Amino acid sequence: MGGALLRTALSEVCGTDVHLWHGRLSGVPYPIIPGHVTTGTLDKARGTLRDVQGRVLEEGDRLAFFDVHRTCGKCLACTAHRTPTRCPSRRVYGITDSATEGLFGGWAQKVYLEPGVVVAKLPDRVTFEDYIGGGCGLLTSVHIIERSKIVLGDTVVVQGAGAVGMSAAALARKAGAGQVIVIGAPQSRLDLSITMGADVVINIDTTTPDERLARVMDLTGGIGADVVIEAAGSPRAFEEGVRMARNGGAYVIAGHYTNTGDSTINAHEHINRKHLDIRGCWGSEVGHFLRALQVLERYRDEVPWHLIGAKTYGLTQINEALAVAASMAIPKALVDPWR
Amino acid sequence: MGGALLRTALSEVCGTDVHLWHGRLSGVPYPIIPGHVTTGTLDKARGTLRDVQGRVLEEGDRLAFFDVHRTCGKCLACTAHRTPTRCPSRRVYGITDSATEGLFGGWAQKVYLEPGVVVAKLPDRVTFEDYIGGGCGLLTSVHIIERSKIVLGDTVVVQGAGAVGMSAAALARKAGAGQVIVIGAPQSRLDLSITMGADVVINIDTTTPDERLARVMDLTGGIGADVVIEAAGSPRAFEEGVRMARNGGAYVIAGHYTNTGDSTINAHEHINRKHLDIRGCWGSEVGHFLRALQVLERYRDEVPWHLIGAKTYGLTQINEALAVAASMAIPKALVDPWR
Amino acid sequence: MGGALLRTALSEVCGTDVHLWHGRLSGVPYPIIPGHVTTGTLDKARGTLRDVQGRVLEEGDRLAFFDVHRTCGKCLACTAHRTPTRCPSRRVYGITDSATEGLFGGWAQKVYLEPGVVVAKLPDRVTFEDYIGGGCGLLTSVHIIERSKIVLGDTVVVQGAGAVGMSAAALARKAGAGQVIVIGAPQSRLDLSITMGADVVINIDTTTPDERLARVMDLTGGIGADVVIEAAGSPRAFEEGVRMARNGGAYVIAGHYTNTGDSTINAHEHINRKHLDIRGCWGSEVGHFLRALQVLERYRDEVPWHLIGAKTYGLTQINEALAVAASMAIPKALVDPWR
Amino acid sequence: MGGALLRTALSEVCGTDVHLWHGRLSGVPYPIIPGHVTTGTLDKARGTLRDVQGRVLEEGDRLAFFDVHRTCGKCLACTAHRTPTRCPSRRVYGITDSATEGLFGGWAQKVYLEPGVVVAKLPDRVTFEDYIGGGCGLLTSVHIIERSKIVLGDTVVVQGAGAVGMSAAALARKAGAGQVIVIGAPQSRLDLSITMGADVVINIDTTTPDERLARVMDLTGGIGADVVIEAAGSPRAFEEGVRMARNGGAYVIAGHYTNTGDSTINAHEHINRKHLDIRGCWGSEVGHFLRALQVLERYRDEVPWHLIGAKTYGLTQINEALAVAASMAIPKALVDPWR
Repeated sequence: MGGALLRTALSEVCGTDVHLWHGRLSGVPYPIIPGHVTTGTLDKARGTLRDVQGRVLEEGDRLAFFDVHRTCGKCLACTAHRTPTRCPSRRVYGITDSATEGLFGGWAQKVYLEPGVVVAKLPDRVTFEDYIGGGCGLLTSVHIIERSKIVLGDTVVVQGAGAVGMSAAALARKAGAGQVIVIGAPQSRLDLSITMGADVVINIDTTTPDERLARVMDLTGGIGADVVIEAAGSPRAFEEGVRMARNGGAYVIAGHYTNTGDSTINAHEHINRKHLDIRGCWGSEVGHFLRALQVLERYRDEVPWHLIGAKTYGLTQINEALAVAASMAIPKALVDPWR
Repeated sequence: MGGALLRTALSEVCGTDVHLWHGRLSGVPYPIIPGHVTTGTLDKARGTLRDVQGRVLEEGDRLAFFDVHRTCGKCLACTAHRTPTRCPSRRVYGITDSATEGLFGGWAQKVYLEPGVVVAKLPDRVTFEDYIGGGCGLLTSVHIIERSKIVLGDTVVVQGAGAVGMSAAALARKAGAGQVIVIGAPQSRLDLSITMGADVVINIDTTTPDERLARVMDLTGGIGADVVIEAAGSPRAFEEGVRMARNGGAYVIAGHYTNTGDSTINAHEHINRKHLDIRGCWGSEVGHFLRALQVLERYRDEVPWHLIGAKTYGLTQINEALAVAASMAIPKALVDPWR
Repeated sequence: MGGALLRTALSEVCGTDVHLWHGRLSGVPYPIIPGHVTTGTLDKARGTLRDVQGRVLEEGDRLAFFDVHRTCGKCLACTAHRTPTRCPSRRVYGITDSATEGLFGGWAQKVYLEPGVVVAKLPDRVTFEDYIGGGCGLLTSVHIIERSKIVLGDTVVVQGAGAVGMSAAALARKAGAGQVIVIGAPQSRLDLSITMGADVVINIDTTTPDERLARVMDLTGGIGADVVIEAAGSPRAFEEGVRMARNGGAYVIAGHYTNTGDSTINAHEHINRKHLDIRGCWGSEVGHFLRALQVLERYRDEVPWHLIGAKTYGLTQINEALAVAASMAIPKALVDPWR
Repeated sequence: MGGALLRTALSEVCGTDVHLWHGRLSGVPYPIIPGHVTTGTLDKARGTLRDVQGRVLEEGDRLAFFDVHRTCGKCLACTAHRTPTRCPSRRVYGITDSATEGLFGGWAQKVYLEPGVVVAKLPDRVTFEDYIGGGCGLLTSVHIIERSKIVLGDTVVVQGAGAVGMSAAALARKAGAGQVIVIGAPQSRLDLSITMGADVVINIDTTTPDERLARVMDLTGGIGADVVIEAAGSPRAFEEGVRMARNGGAYVIAGHYTNTGDSTINAHEHINRKHLDIRGCWGSEVGHFLRALQVLERYRDEVPWHLIGAKTYGLTQINEALAVAASMAIPKALVDPWR
C-alpha cells in the first residue's frame, strides 16, 4: 500500500511519555508527537490498505496498528538471533520518530501509517477503550508471558502495579498460574489488580522488603515463587525479586525501560546456587501485537482493561495529563486529541 | 545391590577441596574424607553390582561412580521443578558426608559405594588419568553446555581457565561453537586451554576489563558473544560478562560455588535492554555423569583431559597438594592414596 | 518409611481396565487387582509416612498416591533422556503388579503403599469425588498440556471426549487457549465437555471427516489449529488430526495407549511441508501427579471433575461397571469396594 | 538499494531442478530460469548495495545471496507462528519466479538481485566451489540441525546420502554428535559421507530394512538413535526411521520436499509409547543462510564441501547435467553459464 491516515480516537500517556517529557531518554529527535499506542478509524488510504492476512481495510474501519515499524527482518538480530526488538533499524511511533518527518504520534488528530506499518481491524467486540486500556502495557505483557513459560499451577509474583504489571498479572492467570501475587502501590492500583485477576496484593508503602519476602515464602509453602515478573523499574525490585524466586525458577526483567541505577546482586546466593533463570524482555514484536488482539477479543469480558484507562484528556489539558501520569494517581491517562 | 568397595586409583584436589581446607563452606560435617570425584577398580561387592543399564560389574573392573547420591527423585525439586541438583536430600561424597559414617571420600584407599550410588564401567579407551583429569570440572561442564544451548557457529566466551573453564571451552568447541575465547590466568593455563580447543585466550593479568571487553567486541564484529560462560567465581567476572554478551545472548553462571561477594549490575543496561538470558547452573545430575563418559570415550584423543591432572600426590604429601591447588600453580593436583 | 495401608474410598474403571478385562494388554501378570488411581484414608503406617515435602502423614488423613512406582531415577531414560515414563523398572498399580505380590490395586478395600510410593495429602478443598473424577485422565492431561506448549490465545482441538479428552480440554482453557474445540461422541460427553470448558464441540457420529476438517478451518479463519491433542486412540484420528493442525503447529499423540492399528500418513503433505511438530506423550511422572493436586485445589470450583465419575459400583457389581465403561454410556464408572 | 546484477560464477543442479525438469512441482510459473542457489561477483548496483550488517558492497566483490525472497515479515506465519518459511508471500529464485519477470535464476550469466534480497560477501577463505558445494543442501542442513537439538554425545542417524544428507551428517558431527550413521546409496556417496564426517555408513542397496534396524540397534547398545534425520524423500524411510529412534528421541523430516506417497505408521508403537518427537523441517530462513556462511568459514578446511559439487557443466550441456543429477551418479552437478 502507499500509506494511510488514521483518525485518532484514543491514544495514551504511558510512563515512557513522562520520561520523554522530562528528557530522560537519550537520542530522541525532538520535537516529537508523543503517543506510541493509538487506535481510531481509517480516514484515507493511498491505494488499498490490507491487514496481515491480506484482508482489505475500508475507510471508517476501527483500527489498531503496531507502533513499532521499520524493523528490517533481514539483519542478524531479526533473523539468526531471533530478537527483532533489537533490530538497529527499528523505530517507534511517538518516541523515535521526529515530528519534522510527519504525523508519527497518536497525540495528533490524524496519524500517518507509512507503508509497511502493521495494521489490524479491531475485533467487533473490542472497544477503543478496551484496546487503549491495555495499550502498550498489554503488548509488553504478551511478550513477558511468552518469556515466563508459566506451567499450570505456578505461583507468579508481579513486581509493579502499573499498566504493565496489571496486564501481566491478568495474563499470568489466563496462562495457567495457580496463584498471582502483585506487589506495588498505591492501594487503588492494587485493588484494580485484584479486579484484573490477582489473588493476593502486597502494598510496598506499608511493608518492608523482609516482610514482603516472608509473605511470598509463606504463600508458597516456604519454596518461593515459580516465576517472578519485574514490572517496577526499580533497582531495589531486582534485588528483592531474585530472593522471591524459588530454586530453578524464572525471573523476567521487563520494567527497566530506562536506567534508574544499579542493583547489588550476589551471584552465588541468588543465581548460581538457585539455578535461577533471569530473562530480560525488551519491547514487543508484531506477533505480540497480533496475540494481544486475540487476547482482548477472548477475555475483554473477564478482564476489565478499559478500567486501566481511567481518565481522558484533550490536547489543551495535556500537561495536566502528564502530571497525573507522573504522580501515578490513576493507572493510565488517555488522550483524545479531538476533545 | 548391597553396597560395594572401590579400590581407589586416583582422586582429585579441586578448588572445593581448598575451600573445605579453609573452612569456607558452611554445614560441612567435619571430620570428612575429601575427594568427591574418584576412580579405581571394583574391590568387593555385597551381592551383585550393576550399572544403570543393568550390566553386572565384576571385581577388578575399572569404575567411575557419581559422587552425588541420595537425591530422592520424588520431591518437588526432583520432579515438578526438574532441578534435582536442588533436592534437599542430595549428598556429595567428600563434601557433605562425614568420615564418622564411613568411607565416603576418594582420598581413602578404599571408598564405600553405598546402595543406590550410580556406578559405571570406564569405557575401554578411557584411562584413569583421562577420567580424573576431567573430574568434577568435566561433569559440571556437561551441565553448563546443556544450559548454554550453543548454536552452530556461535562465539562462546569462557571466563576462567581452571578445570571447569578448560573443560567448558573444550566442550563448547565440540558442541558447535565457531569461536571459543578463554579469559583467565596464569599463562600456562591459557596455553593448555588452547590445547584443549580454545581459539583465543586473554590473560587477565596483563589486561584491563575495558581492554578485554574491547577485544571480545573486536572478535565478534562489534556484536558481542552469543554465549558467555562464567567459570571464574569472581564478582567482577559477572560484571564483565554481562557486558560481553550480545543482545539476546546467554550468560551461564557456574563458577560461584561459594560466596565471594556482591556484583553491581545495571538491570537496564545489561539485562532488560539487552534482552539477555542469565542462567544459573548448579552441580550436575546423573545424566551429566553418563554423558561425560560418552564424551571422554569419543573425544579423549582430541582433547587431552589427562593434561589437566598435572601432578599426583600421596597422602603424606596432601598438604602440599592443597597448597599447590590453592596457588593455582598447576591446573589440578591428583591424589593416589596408595603412593 | 516401611510401607503403609490405604483404606480405599474410591477407585476408578478407566479404559485401560476394559483393555485388561479383554486381555488386550501384553505382559500383564494375571491375576491382578485392578484400580491404578485410587484415593482413601491412611489406615496404618509402619513407621512414619511422609509426603514429598517431608510432612508427616497421620492415620485418618485423606490421601492420594502416585500409582506409578519403582521408576529407578538412575537409568538413561530417567536421567540423560529425561523420559522417566520409559524407565524399564517402572511399574503401575493395578496393571503391572500381580495380585500374588500383595494389595497392589484400588479395587481392594485396602491398598498396600510400598516403601518409595509417592503419597500426598488431599488438599482440604478437594473431595474424594473431585480427585477420582479427574483420576488417571487428569494426570495424563497435565502431561499433555506440558507437551502442548500452548501460547495465550491458541486454538486447541482435542480429539476424544473421554476422561482424558475432557480433562485436556479443561486444562487447555486454563493454560491459555483462546478457543477449545472437542471432537468426539456421544453427545452426553460433548455436553459435559462444554461444562468442563470447551467452546465448541463436534459430534463424530453426525459428521464426516471432511466436515470436521472444514469446521476446524472455519473456526480458525482457514489457518488450522495451533495445537491438536489426540485422546481418541483411533488410527483415523491421527489421519484427521494432522490435517487440522496449522503450518508450524503441534500435534500431541496421547490416546494410543494400546495398538489399534496403522495410520496412513503423507510425510510431505502433513509433516514436512507443514513444518509440523508431532509429540508422543506417554504416561505421567511424579511431577504431573503433584501438579494435578495443585490444579484440583485451584480449579475444582470452576471445572466439575466430580461429574466425570458418573456412577459408583460395589465389588459385586464390577462386571456391570466394566460393561458400562466398555459401552461408553457414562464418562467414568467408579468403584467403592466397601459398598 | 535499487537492485543489482550478479555475474554468475557457479550455480547448482539440485534434486529440485530434476523435479522441475519433470514437471513434478505444482504451481511453477514456467518458463523459469532454474538455479536457486548461486554465487558470483557483484556486477553493477543501482545505488548502494549493503549486506545485512550495513556494510557497503563493491563491484567485483564475491557474493552469495539468499534465494528466498519477498518473505513479508508481518504475517502470522512470519511473526506469531515463527515459521517464516510458511509465509504466503515467500518466493524462491529459480523455482517460483517466472523468467518473464526477469533474471531470477542462477543458470543465467547474470542474476537480478531485486531490492530486499539478502546479500552477503563471501568470507575471504570461502571459495565459490566451497559455497556452491554446500549449496541449498547446506542451508537446509543448518535448519535441520537447529530442529534436531543434538546433545553432546548423541548418536545421530541420517537417512539419505545426497547433498542434504551429507551436509547434515557433517554438521551433526560439528554440533556435538558422538556418533553419526549415514544410510543411503550408492557407495561412492557413502564414501564421501565418511570424508564429510560420518562414523558409520549403511548401504541400502545391500541391506534389508530389518538388517539396517538391527545395525542401528547394535551401534547404540540396543537403545536406538537419539536423533534420526530424514533426508531421503521416501515413504519407506519414514517407516524405517521411527523404528530407529530411541524412546524419547527425535525424528526430523526434511527430505519430503515433494509428494512421493504415503507411509504406514503405527501411532501406538512408533510415537505414543516411544514418547517420540517428530519435527517437520521446511526450507530455510535468512538466519540459516547467515549461519551457513559462518559454518563454511569455520569448517571449510575440515569438511570438504567442494567435493560435493563433483562436475561443472556449461549451458549447452545442461540436459546432460540434469540427466546426471537424476541418475544420482555424482553427488551434485554444477552450472557455469559462461563456460
